[in-house]
Amino acid sequence: MGSALAGAFLDGGQRTTVWNRTPGKADPLVARGAVVAASAEEAVANSDLVVVNVKGNEAARSILASAGSLAGRVVVNLSDGTSGEAREVATRVAERGAEYVHGQIMTIAPAIGHADSVVFYGGDEGAFNRHRAELLLLGGRGTFLGDDAGAPALFGLAMNGTMWGTLNGFLHAAALLSSQGVEVKRFVEAASASLTGLLGYLPSLAEEVDRGEYAVPFGALKHHLPAADDLVRESRERGIDVEFPSYTLGLLRAVVEAGHGDDSYSRVVEVFRSGSTAS
Amino acid sequence: MGSALAGAFLDGGQRTTVWNRTPGKADPLVARGAVVAASAEEAVANSDLVVVNVKGNEAARSILASAGSLAGRVVVNLSDGTSGEAREVATRVAERGAEYVHGQIMTIAPAIGHADSVVFYGGDEGAFNRHRAELLLLGGRGTFLGDDAGAPALFGLAMNGTMWGTLNGFLHAAALLSSQGVEVKRFVEAASASLTGLLGYLPSLAEEVDRGEYAVPFGALKHHLPAADDLVRESRERGIDVEFPSYTLGLLRAVVEAGHGDDSYSRVVEVFRSGSTAS
Ligand SMILES: NC(=O)c1ccc[n+]([C@@H]2O[C@H](COP(=O)([O-])OP(=O)(O)OC[C@H]3O[C@@H](n4cnc5c(N)ncnc54)[C@H](OP(=O)(O)O)[C@@H]3O)[C@@H](O)[C@H]2O)c1
Ligand SMILES: NC(=O)c1ccc[n+]([C@@H]2O[C@H](COP(=O)([O-])OP(=O)(O)OC[C@H]3O[C@@H](n4cnc5c(N)ncnc54)[C@H](OP(=O)(O)O)[C@@H]3O)[C@@H](O)[C@H]2O)c1
Repeated sequence: MGSALAGAFLDGGQRTTVWNRTPGKADPLVARGAVVAASAEEAVANSDLVVVNVKGNEAARSILASAGSLAGRVVVNLSDGTSGEAREVATRVAERGAEYVHGQIMTIAPAIGHADSVVFYGGDEGAFNRHRAELLLLGGRGTFLGDDAGAPALFGLAMNGTMWGTLNGFLHAAALLSSQGVEVKRFVEAASASLTGLLGYLPSLAEEVDRGEYAVPFGALKHHLPAADDLVRESRERGIDVEFPSYTLGLLRAVVEAGHGDDSYSRVVEVFRSGSTAS
Repeated sequence: MGSALAGAFLDGGQRTTVWNRTPGKADPLVARGAVVAASAEEAVANSDLVVVNVKGNEAARSILASAGSLAGRVVVNLSDGTSGEAREVATRVAERGAEYVHGQIMTIAPAIGHADSVVFYGGDEGAFNRHRAELLLLGGRGTFLGDDAGAPALFGLAMNGTMWGTLNGFLHAAALLSSQGVEVKRFVEAASASLTGLLGYLPSLAEEVDRGEYAVPFGALKHHLPAADDLVRESRERGIDVEFPSYTLGLLRAVVEAGHGDDSYSRVVEVFRSGSTAS
C-alpha cells in the first residue's frame, strides 16, 4: 500500500521522498523519480507533508517517535486501527508541534490514484485543506469527516462491518443455491432489483436509529421471524451451516421478547448496544 | 397480503372471487367488486386461476385438500416456506390434475401491484405464461425461474439471508457510530460509494463460487483479518456487542487455518458448506 501511495504522488508530479524499514523495497519508486531517505528522520526533514502507512498504529507511533522534530509538519497517518488508537497518535503528534490528519483508505492498493477511490479523513481541517490537492491524488473521493481524528477509522470499521455482514449473508445463500445446482450468478441477476432496494432501505433505518423512534406502519420486525425460521430449516435440510441463520433468529427473538416486535428491524441496534447478543 | 393480492386483481379489472377462513375479512374487497365464496371449494369452482396465500405451506396444502376438484385449474401458491415444502405442494396438486406454479413475494403488502415489485415464480411454465398478464398485476417484476417449484422459495431465502446479513452488519455499525455521537445518516451518505461498490462486488464472488476457483490477484481473504480484529477491539472498547464481529473473525480464521488465506473472500462459502461454522 505504501508503494501505491508514493506512486500516486509521483504520477501526480509531486516531489516525493520515501522511506521503508526494509531497504530496497523503495527501489522501483526511485526508478520512477522518488528520493529515498536513509531514515524516517531524514524523510520527515525533507517533507512538509508526511504520509505514514504501516501495519498498525503502534508501528506508526514508534516510527514518528524516532523521526526527530515534527514541528511545522503536517502528518497524515493512513495506518489501519481502532478510532482510539488514531486519537492517541493524534495527541502524540500534536504535542510535538505538528498538525495531524488521520486517513482511512477504503480501497485495495491497485485502486489507489483512481478518481472514484474513497479515503476518509479527519483531524486538523486547515491542514487537510492546505494539502487537499495532493491528498486527492491518492483517491478522488477524499472526504473530510470533521475534527475527530478517530472518525475515519470508525467510519471505515462501520463500512467493513456492513460489508462482512453482506458478504457472509450472500455466501451462506451461495452455499444454499449451489447445493441445489443453481448458479449463484443467476441469483445475483434475478435478485438485482431486491439488492438495490436493500441499499435504498438503509437511509430510513439510519433515521430511525438517529431519532430513536422505531415505529413503522408496515413490515414490522416480528414479520421476519417465520422467514428466518424457514431459512434455518432450509439450511438444515440441505446440510448447510445452521449457525448463521440461527444468529438472525436469535436477534429477532431478543427484540420480540423485549416487547418490540411491532417496531422496525432497526430495533436490533439496541440488542447490539446492550453489549451481548441472544443466542 | 391476501387482501393486497385480491385488490391488485380488482384494480386490474379481473373478475375476482375471494375466500378466507375467518368470514368478514373479505368485506372491504366485496365493496370493491369481489365475489365472496362460502368455501374454498366454491372459490376454486368459480376460478380458472386459483391463487393461494396463507401462513405457511401446511395451511395451503390442507386448504387445497379440502377444495374439491382441482382438475383443469392453475394453482399459484404464494405462501412462504422452504423449497422442499413448495415441491411437496406441487406434487400433491399435480396429482389432482391441476397445473402448479409457486410464487415468492419479495415485497411487503403495500407494494403489491407496483410496477417495480418483485415476485419470483417457478413450476409449470405453460401455465405461468398463459396467466402472465394477470400475475404481473401483482408485481411488475414477475420473474419465471424455471420448472423447479422450489426455486422461488430458495431464491427468496437466499435474498432474505443476504438482507439480514447486511442489516445486522449495518445495525451493529450503527451502534458503534451512535456511541460516538455520529449520526448514522451521515455515515450512509459518506459510505454511499462504498456501499454501491459492495453490490458491484457480488457478481465476481458469484462467479468464483460457480467456477469453484477462488484465486485472486489482490485483496485476498487473509488481508481482512487485521481489520476484523480491529472491529472486535473497537466494539469491546465501546461496550458494543463483540459476538457479531467475532463471528466474522472466526469465519476468516477457519479459512486461513484450512490453508486458503490467499484466496478470495468467497472461500467462506466452503465453511458454510461444511455445515458448521468455526467460533
Ligand atoms: N493493502 C491494502 O489493500 C490496504 C487497504 C486498506 C488499508 N490498508 C492499510 O495500509 C497499511 C499497510 O498495509 P499493507 O497492505 O501495505 O501491509 P504490508 O504489505 O504488510 O506492509 C506493512 C508495512 O508496514 C511496515 N511495518 C510494519 N511494522 C513496522 C514497524 N514496526 N516499523 C516500521 N515499519 C513497519 C512494513 O515494513 P517492512 O517492509 O520493513 O516489513 C511495510 O512497509 C495497513 O494499516 C493496512 O491495514 C491496506
Ligand atoms: N405481509 C407481507 O408483507 C408478506 C410479504 C411477503 C410474503 N408474505 C407471505 O404471505 C403469506 C400471508 O402473509 P400475511 O402477512 O397476510 O399473514 P397473516 O396476516 O398472518 O395472514 C395469514 C392468512 O393465512 C390464513 N391462515 C392461516 N392459517 C390457516 C389455516 N390453517 N387455514 C386457513 N387459513 C389460514 C389466515 O386466515 P385468518 O384470517 O382466518 O386467520 C390469513 O388469511 C405468508 O406466507 C407470508 O409469509 C407476506
